[in-house]
Amino acid sequence: AIADRAESLFPRECLAGKRVVITAGPTREALDPVRYITNHSSGKMGFALARAAVEAGASTTIIAGPVALETPEHVQRVDVTSARDMATASNELAAEADIFIACAAVADYRPAEAQTSKIKKTGESITLALTRNPDIVASVAQRENAPFTVGFAAETDNVVAYARGKLERKGLALIVANDVSNSQIGFNSNENAATLVWADGQRELAQANKNTIARQIIDQIAGMLPTNSPK
Amino acid sequence: AIADRAESLFPRECLAGKRVVITAGPTREALDPVRYITNHSSGKMGFALARAAVEAGASTTIIAGPVALETPEHVQRVDVTSARDMATASNELAAEADIFIACAAVADYRPAEAQTSKIKKTGESITLALTRNPDIVASVAQRENAPFTVGFAAETDNVVAYARGKLERKGLALIVANDVSNSQIGFNSNENAATLVWADGQRELAQANKNTIARQIIDQIAGMLPTNSPK
Repeated sequence: AIADRAESLFPRECLAGKRVVITAGPTREALDPVRYITNHSSGKMGFALARAAVEAGASTTIIAGPVALETPEHVQRVDVTSARDMATASNELAAEADIFIACAAVADYRPAEAQTSKIKKTGESITLALTRNPDIVASVAQRENAPFTVGFAAETDNVVAYARGKLERKGLALIVANDVSNSQIGFNSNENAATLVWADGQRELAQANKNTIARQIIDQIAGMLPTNSPK
Repeated sequence: AIADRAESLFPRECLAGKRVVITAGPTREALDPVRYITNHSSGKMGFALARAAVEAGASTTIIAGPVALETPEHVQRVDVTSARDMATASNELAAEADIFIACAAVADYRPAEAQTSKIKKTGESITLALTRNPDIVASVAQRENAPFTVGFAAETDNVVAYARGKLERKGLALIVANDVSNSQIGFNSNENAATLVWADGQRELAQANKNTIARQIIDQIAGMLPTNSPK
């Protein structure tokens, strides 16, 4: 009954004819053939968004970092490992998308030089030079004929303030902000809670299953889209 | 028939009455609440060794980093995340062990300072200070009344030469050396191949299922143990 109620709150086919591209999961940034930098993203939120987009009638593609998740039905999937691979796939697919949702937890930095042989232990301490990865969501949002671009902000402090800054700085249409210091939600959890932030408003999504949160985000996006503007 | 043959090559109960402790999987070294450094270890080899040790009649404990594997039957399991957690558990359990097998791919270095808030992007490049983690297998091997201590060497170059150096430097009884540049074996594969290296000998284990390799390693250990020396 709860599932029925969630469905009834959510007008089906609200994204009929739209093409949605969603990034999901972490990226891995190689230090050498053995070691890498990554993060705790499980990909569950991005995959839930893909299911919700399909339910809403969209043609849906997910660009997935290394995650242990099955591809949802009717979703196209492109697997990538590093942030640079994800950037390449995103820019290519965003050119044909109406909506781009950057849900992946992309590594901000990668090792300046990935070693091709395993790094030897050489002393009590070492320093690792890291270089900035491409900002995928900003580059998609700043395209000519950019899709409706949605970012995520996973923060531990001042969550909504950071999110609003990010929205403006990157030129996003909408941002989904959540507080990853709350271990009941986010990353490896099946639940999430978030604040949706856009230029002239915000909306709290109370803690719920990620599928429910995903439907609410898709609903919000559908309501904000310019009408009758398929590319 | 192949499984039967493998079993018959392997005298059951050759470790009856022995207490075996095995480390397995990767460790994760936190950069901040979101990001970490890790490696490609799946834990499969360590878990195969735990099954082989149980088959050989040993009382078996596995100290596991973050892996997606079921605990084998009759195995005690201690879950850890960082190298320092693994070191604490290893030193505690090694005190009561006859055999200690350090199969985990322990991070050699951790961030000198783990941030309690998410690190902000601050520029095109940053440097990360890393500090050496405790050398678990060396500290176990160098204990008074040390257990029979087995190390692993996952290398990309000059595999056996590095392994022999490690054996001597750390005071190990046996080392299992493998070439992780061969993508058909090791880490996420179900197959492995290795060279067993000890003070006055070495033995090649041809590419095979990790369960077969594990039985051969347990067999080798059983053959090298001083007779009648339970602690």
